Amino acid sequence: MPETTPRGLTRLAFGGDYNPEQWPESVWQEDVRLMREAGVSLVSVGIFSWALLEPARGEYDFGWLDRLLDLLHDSGVRVDLGTPTVVPPVWFYREHPEALPVTADGTRYEFGSRGAICHSNPDYRAAAANITTQLAERYGDHPALAMWHVHNEYGVPVSACYCDCCAAHFRRWLADTYGTVEAVNEAWGTAFWGQRYTDLDQINPPRATPTVGNPAQALDYKRFADATLRENFRAERDILHRLSPGVPVTTNFMTALSQCDSIDYWAWGREVDLVTNDHYLITDGRRTHVNLAMAADLTRSVAGGAPWLLLEHSTSGVNWQARNPAKAPGQMARNSLAHVARGSEGAMFFQWRQSRRGAEKFHSAMVPHGGTDTRVWHEVVRLGADLDRLGEIRSTRTRADVAVLWDWQSWWAQGLDWRPSEDHDARERADAFYEALYDRHLTVDFAHPEADLSAYPLVVVPALYLMTEAAGRNLQAYVENGGTLLVSYFSGIVDEHDAVHEGAYPGALRDVLGLTVEEFSPLLKDQTVRVTGPGGSELRADVWTEFVVPRGAQTVWTYADGLTAGRPAVTRHRLGAGTAWYVSTRLGAEGLDAVLAQAAEDARLAPSADLPRDVEVVVRTGERGTYLFALNHTSADVKIPLETPGTELLTGERAAGRLELPAGAVRVVRLDG
Amino acid sequence: MPETTPRGLTRLAFGGDYNPEQWPESVWQEDVRLMREAGVSLVSVGIFSWALLEPARGEYDFGWLDRLLDLLHDSGVRVDLGTPTVVPPVWFYREHPEALPVTADGTRYEFGSRGAICHSNPDYRAAAANITTQLAERYGDHPALAMWHVHNEYGVPVSACYCDCCAAHFRRWLADTYGTVEAVNEAWGTAFWGQRYTDLDQINPPRATPTVGNPAQALDYKRFADATLRENFRAERDILHRLSPGVPVTTNFMTALSQCDSIDYWAWGREVDLVTNDHYLITDGRRTHVNLAMAADLTRSVAGGAPWLLLEHSTSGVNWQARNPAKAPGQMARNSLAHVARGSEGAMFFQWRQSRRGAEKFHSAMVPHGGTDTRVWHEVVRLGADLDRLGEIRSTRTRADVAVLWDWQSWWAQGLDWRPSEDHDARERADAFYEALYDRHLTVDFAHPEADLSAYPLVVVPALYLMTEAAGRNLQAYVENGGTLLVSYFSGIVDEHDAVHEGAYPGALRDVLGLTVEEFSPLLKDQTVRVTGPGGSELRADVWTEFVVPRGAQTVWTYADGLTAGRPAVTRHRLGAGTAWYVSTRLGAEGLDAVLAQAAEDARLAPSADLPRDVEVVVRTGERGTYLFALNHTSADVKIPLETPGTELLTGERAAGRLELPAGAVRVVRLDG
Amino acid sequence: MPETTPRGLTRLAFGGDYNPEQWPESVWQEDVRLMREAGVSLVSVGIFSWALLEPARGEYDFGWLDRLLDLLHDSGVRVDLGTPTVVPPVWFYREHPEALPVTADGTRYEFGSRGAICHSNPDYRAAAANITTQLAERYGDHPALAMWHVHNEYGVPVSACYCDCCAAHFRRWLADTYGTVEAVNEAWGTAFWGQRYTDLDQINPPRATPTVGNPAQALDYKRFADATLRENFRAERDILHRLSPGVPVTTNFMTALSQCDSIDYWAWGREVDLVTNDHYLITDGRRTHVNLAMAADLTRSVAGGAPWLLLEHSTSGVNWQARNPAKAPGQMARNSLAHVARGSEGAMFFQWRQSRRGAEKFHSAMVPHGGTDTRVWHEVVRLGADLDRLGEIRSTRTRADVAVLWDWQSWWAQGLDWRPSEDHDARERADAFYEALYDRHLTVDFAHPEADLSAYPLVVVPALYLMTEAAGRNLQAYVENGGTLLVSYFSGIVDEHDAVHEGAYPGALRDVLGLTVEEFSPLLKDQTVRVTGPGGSELRADVWTEFVVPRGAQTVWTYADGLTAGRPAVTRHRLGAGTAWYVSTRLGAEGLDAVLAQAAEDARLAPSADLPRDVEVVVRTGERGTYLFALNHTSADVKIPLETPGTELLTGERAAGRLELPAGAVRVVRLDG
Repeated sequence: MPETTPRGLTRLAFGGDYNPEQWPESVWQEDVRLMREAGVSLVSVGIFSWALLEPARGEYDFGWLDRLLDLLHDSGVRVDLGTPTVVPPVWFYREHPEALPVTADGTRYEFGSRGAICHSNPDYRAAAANITTQLAERYGDHPALAMWHVHNEYGVPVSACYCDCCAAHFRRWLADTYGTVEAVNEAWGTAFWGQRYTDLDQINPPRATPTVGNPAQALDYKRFADATLRENFRAERDILHRLSPGVPVTTNFMTALSQCDSIDYWAWGREVDLVTNDHYLITDGRRTHVNLAMAADLTRSVAGGAPWLLLEHSTSGVNWQARNPAKAPGQMARNSLAHVARGSEGAMFFQWRQSRRGAEKFHSAMVPHGGTDTRVWHEVVRLGADLDRLGEIRSTRTRADVAVLWDWQSWWAQGLDWRPSEDHDARERADAFYEALYDRHLTVDFAHPEADLSAYPLVVVPALYLMTEAAGRNLQAYVENGGTLLVSYFSGIVDEHDAVHEGAYPGALRDVLGLTVEEFSPLLKDQTVRVTGPGGSELRADVWTEFVVPRGAQTVWTYADGLTAGRPAVTRHRLGAGTAWYVSTRLGAEGLDAVLAQAAEDARLAPSADLPRDVEVVVRTGERGTYLFALNHTSADVKIPLETPGTELLTGERAAGRLELPAGAVRVVRLDG
Repeated sequence: MPETTPRGLTRLAFGGDYNPEQWPESVWQEDVRLMREAGVSLVSVGIFSWALLEPARGEYDFGWLDRLLDLLHDSGVRVDLGTPTVVPPVWFYREHPEALPVTADGTRYEFGSRGAICHSNPDYRAAAANITTQLAERYGDHPALAMWHVHNEYGVPVSACYCDCCAAHFRRWLADTYGTVEAVNEAWGTAFWGQRYTDLDQINPPRATPTVGNPAQALDYKRFADATLRENFRAERDILHRLSPGVPVTTNFMTALSQCDSIDYWAWGREVDLVTNDHYLITDGRRTHVNLAMAADLTRSVAGGAPWLLLEHSTSGVNWQARNPAKAPGQMARNSLAHVARGSEGAMFFQWRQSRRGAEKFHSAMVPHGGTDTRVWHEVVRLGADLDRLGEIRSTRTRADVAVLWDWQSWWAQGLDWRPSEDHDARERADAFYEALYDRHLTVDFAHPEADLSAYPLVVVPALYLMTEAAGRNLQAYVENGGTLLVSYFSGIVDEHDAVHEGAYPGALRDVLGLTVEEFSPLLKDQTVRVTGPGGSELRADVWTEFVVPRGAQTVWTYADGLTAGRPAVTRHRLGAGTAWYVSTRLGAEGLDAVLAQAAEDARLAPSADLPRDVEVVVRTGERGTYLFALNHTSADVKIPLETPGTELLTGERAAGRLELPAGAVRVVRLDG
Repeated sequence: MPETTPRGLTRLAFGGDYNPEQWPESVWQEDVRLMREAGVSLVSVGIFSWALLEPARGEYDFGWLDRLLDLLHDSGVRVDLGTPTVVPPVWFYREHPEALPVTADGTRYEFGSRGAICHSNPDYRAAAANITTQLAERYGDHPALAMWHVHNEYGVPVSACYCDCCAAHFRRWLADTYGTVEAVNEAWGTAFWGQRYTDLDQINPPRATPTVGNPAQALDYKRFADATLRENFRAERDILHRLSPGVPVTTNFMTALSQCDSIDYWAWGREVDLVTNDHYLITDGRRTHVNLAMAADLTRSVAGGAPWLLLEHSTSGVNWQARNPAKAPGQMARNSLAHVARGSEGAMFFQWRQSRRGAEKFHSAMVPHGGTDTRVWHEVVRLGADLDRLGEIRSTRTRADVAVLWDWQSWWAQGLDWRPSEDHDARERADAFYEALYDRHLTVDFAHPEADLSAYPLVVVPALYLMTEAAGRNLQAYVENGGTLLVSYFSGIVDEHDAVHEGAYPGALRDVLGLTVEEFSPLLKDQTVRVTGPGGSELRADVWTEFVVPRGAQTVWTYADGLTAGRPAVTRHRLGAGTAWYVSTRLGAEGLDAVLAQAAEDARLAPSADLPRDVEVVVRTGERGTYLFALNHTSADVKIPLETPGTELLTGERAAGRLELPAGAVRVVRLDG
């Protein structure tokens, strides 16, 4: 069995992507000296090195990598060694031009950026297997080797290819999945618009069509593309397991919904030995620390609650957004420890030394262009020291309060064309509900809709358009057994083939919610409605309304105007030992908080401690103890209540009753007991 | 001679598209039971059934359709039978991949949505003729057959194909149209930018060019594409006429300018036995009932004033807009009867039973997902009953007050690139003038610019950029003989080849308007000018101004600021026995009303009865009587004056002096006498 | 040696593009009569005539051009004769379809607009050389011939082609430029993302890639494309020089940054015998006369300060903008004389007679559609007479006060993807600094960063992202020798291969500015910061901030809020005998003026005379005298100070002390002495 933590790493991971091939070897000595100064414990190497390692078909140049790994080993830096299969060399493409991917409208991409790969292509697969084998044979038992890093960020920049090779591969996938063309016709509803196939060989990828194509085909193609990437991951992983036994194999995820939308991480989480994640702040004016917490919670959930590792984030600004501000002083450390609080076993960066050339030269790094006489470098050194002080938290697990259901496949389905309103966005609702829970200082686990939910007092369903009958039954049992469920509109509408469940909406949830929805009635752009409820409270809603018909549920909030005036807006349904809430419109932060307050009461969730907004408290716990992480994202010093006294690990000070938390600071308290 | 009304239909048409192939046959029984409950008299069948009827080349499966037609016949439901030529089966495309259409930049579309057809393709033409022949032979005298429904919504989603086959076809069309390459050079003005051809074989479709191509070529390609669709319609129609004699043949138009811009319906109106139309509300916050009335008037005008049939609209929301709100309670019936008021012989829907699968599953239907215990179904049943009460209005004709000139070819020409301002939009002006007339409670006929206009006291020309010399002479004669003409700016500028008429603008209208325009001077984005006129009235205008030089016309409104300050903005020209008005800028609703008020006075149009805004009154008249339709689009009960007493058909009550018209209601009064 | 002024032209140039092929020859007589009436001295002929001159391969029809040139000569109108190589005839493309250019995503353009040329194509090159040879042999010593006009507006509408022929050509260019593939790898930094090449034959153009490609490759491709156009220009020029000795050869530039971004005019200025320019007002609500002045100054600078010729502008509105307003009365003359003030030896127009057909029929002309009874024609005649009164200013040179550095290659580099903020735009900063100098009534020379700057008391660097080490040294020497330098942010960052200069930003300018920049920190959309400085002055800034570390420089303005609060915003560095200013954020007009005021003081620039805003004063000087041009762009009459008395040439009046300058008027005073 492969290990599930970086081999030989006895501290929290700290370091970054290291691309020494961009620098003369004379710089390498300086690099390891600085790594030691900063307390770097792990670096990722070789991710983009195929063209250097195999400069011509079957000709290898491992000398530089031998020297590098030895140097790192001598310096006490562990190595996360990449398979460079995200960047086949140009000679490969000139031999196999058909390995370049093709867009839905038939444009074949050119070599020259990265990740331009048709993952169905057999020549690519053979070449990738070969270079992986070469690396595994040569370095599989290198003493510096801590883990294997397969490929890079599967799913971007190309999420699917539409070439003829993929068409054939898709047909094989369909044959495996459905068996017969009749089953495909049934699943895809091809009676509509005369789309019926009589032979699987007639089926192509969902290439450009004059108007909207078959949605079930489009959905299956997303599944196929994801499965194809996983096939390729597994092929490399299996080679590594065979030739480098025991060493954990990972690939870096991008679980933030803003950063990758083409990967079903629930499936991928089961394939890797250790979940690792890349996370970058989206600087669009919203609260970046909330999105960070959400991505970290999602990563931990994908890892099944086990510790994971933040493999990339940035020391300061990135380079690929429309506008790339720097991080504020202290923010890098606070971001890093926010990931650690939610389960990461360290904090790694892209990248160690800022590139002078290429597309990413304006991306910050641990060693910036300005060198070591810079704020960024000083903060890097300080963070290295802080992480060293937290070594004992390794292997502890983050404690969650509530579950939020999430399913990438439902997101894919909901994002297809011709939905009731383009203003509705499953990700927006997931963000909004997460933010509302965050602002109630609740720690969130994400869960698949068919997962066991019995451990959670409250389960929130932000927008789960596609929901299988099994998922519906799962939620019903959860409520009947005493759970509290809170469901947002446009959930439970279609089955796994994007077919509307029979009968009235929401087919998979009618019974548990105790209502039907006669019609959706999205609002016009910038249109809002008023919603009135308990104690005369009035909320504003937008984007979406519905004609809800209670069939067992009671009305808690009511539409006060608009087409649905007088109809239920928010309902509550007692079922068995539990309660199911339904929100039929898009509420803002205030509205979500009001509904959550009531649902939390049903769930008997203890009211959270009296914490200021943007002060984040998370608990990791394990055999060695219980650790309270407190992060102050505000610019004011605060004191927060501390029920159990303990020792603050970064300052070494004792804390009891109240914990002092300066503006922008992080504190980690080992609670006594 | 084929009939011009659905054979055997003795009531107003009521029903919808019926796609039973999406459901097990067990559901069919339920369907006909519900059709009877709702009073359905006609359904459209088979429009998308090619793949089911001909599952492989030359292999047919008519059994299900036999059973269906017999079942419908037994249930007293008449059938509008489709030729399924809008959806060739996938096997056809795999045999003839070149039948898939190609975009202007060379992308060939894929099978998988609908209407992906190169209409020049000879294999497509042969296959379409064959399936049409098969259907006509089998069902040409079926007792359920009321009419033939050829294809579906010609012109969308592909309005033109740019493949090599179309190129050859285009060259034949040019040879037929122009005879010689010299004539093409002359018509297209190819001396410009060195575009001269020396052989027709050198000519291609207006594919992607680095900058703007030849506008006359682009305009001719639109004509060619439209003519090609008409060729294919005629081919099917002629087969049906031959094999199913007497049965009327139609194809469903989409006359609303918002819904199809590629079809010259003036030409198509002459080809069908019965004009039918599809109409959908565009829910962008504007008054949907005005657009509906306009589309209905345009449809009636295309039908030459004869009764027509609304073949598709929606019971509630659609699925293909950015935001798809539901219809308000009562709106479906009001929409339906608004079409009937303006000449439709019934109200049909897309579709009977809401699909569970495919791209249109969120489009409302007569039988919604929620079944019969729903508001929509209850309103459907009520509408069926109401239509039954109105049977006697069949064959009456709507009475119009004024004419508005419209020409799709001019619209095409005006929409080409490099016009003086992209803010000017012929359709916007047509909408605006229509709305101004609607708000004066005037019923509008649309007319082609070369049509006989002598019956109309007032003729409005919203924006007729392309106007032949014949059209100019037609308008001049109209005015000289006593008519009142009101022309908006950028009219009469070019001839049929997009060549500017010789001499000063507006070449085709200089004489009748008594002025020349030295220069257009469009306004900047969001720029407005003031215009002052009679009695010190001041109007705001935007988008467009002109340097008008009166040459016989008198100035009525004058620009008060901007580049054209002090110049005429609105002029009036007495010519012969009539008067011609010119509006040289874009006036809003208030301005148009002010100008219309004066022009209506010249036209001696009786001031309309004192009706509230958004209360619509239309009259149908015929041998059996005169019927006043009153529709209240407001949320207030009103009473409207009734000069002639009569019997209200929906309530059966007598009405005299004033007619009570509750909020949202429709009343249809058979006037005494 | 070819001459550098139009042969035989004894007056200022006045006339336009003349396309008589669009009209019957009967119109030509009318044309020359009107040319005489208007005082036309020069017309451009034959630019788009290839298809007429060579209707089939090797068959020529020169008769019409013979007649035309004789007619013009007889009428005293000089001829600027075009080589028609921008519009190969359709027969050429049908023989050589691969001569049509291809976009980066593989779309091959079609014939039918203009300029659809792959400039690497050998068949095109041969055909272009042939028609040029034919014309030169036939008309090389025609008495009407004043100069040769090669091609038309190189660089638009196709700036680069991406076909296989260009790929091969690009590889040859790389071989010539770099010698070896190793040198290319080094220059392009291909170690990044595994992009290393092992053979030049592996390299393709920067075609569509899934994410950002190699920036140095993209930059070199822009250089290659520009160089390829210059090769083709040179090939034609050399034929003309050989066969038509002494006659000057030009091609019409479009130096306005808004109108062409793909040509390095510094390089082109050295290739032509006489710089000519096309200029069109961009009517987006900004002050068009400032952009005009800037383009004229840039054109003169490209000409090395020598007189140049405005070859195209418009009499009134154009046709290719989103909105094309007319010119105000008097504006055409003011525009024309503004070009003359800044060095143009006349004013030419596109075009003589407005087209009735084709894509440009709504572009104004000297003879509008409305003929001669129009405001435009009357103004044309008046302008012709005015230009005749100014003949003596020929060959004088415009006097500049300051230099602004500009480099098209830096602009290209800065415009590549993944820069710190897409809101930053080198052209915007160049416009803004130019406008600030204009508003201080300073006349600007533009200069290449490596040019000798010693003549200028003040040098402004608006945004020069790419700056070679040589340029950096040039600026350092300039300052050390007493110059005053003002540098805007994001300057001096990368070398000629888009590689970040080693060490802290701004590598090429650290020493001269006396500071380093630790990090860029662009602002979010619509975010602003306050900047406080001398005497408590407070400015607003947006788009960009930086963490500036003074290393010798003193802080003059300081960030008052935002991430960089408390850090330097604007600094001043005394170095040797000079001073270097740095502005690290985006200041608006008020801020730039405040900084310029201080820098101008350092530069000991005499405060400009007390002139109203939008009153422009420029001086041309030469052996025959010194001429003060005063242009009043306002709607108020003004008097401006006149230090030296003189004679006003347009009115013939004497002026002393103060010059009366009516609203909208231009005055040209020959100063006494």
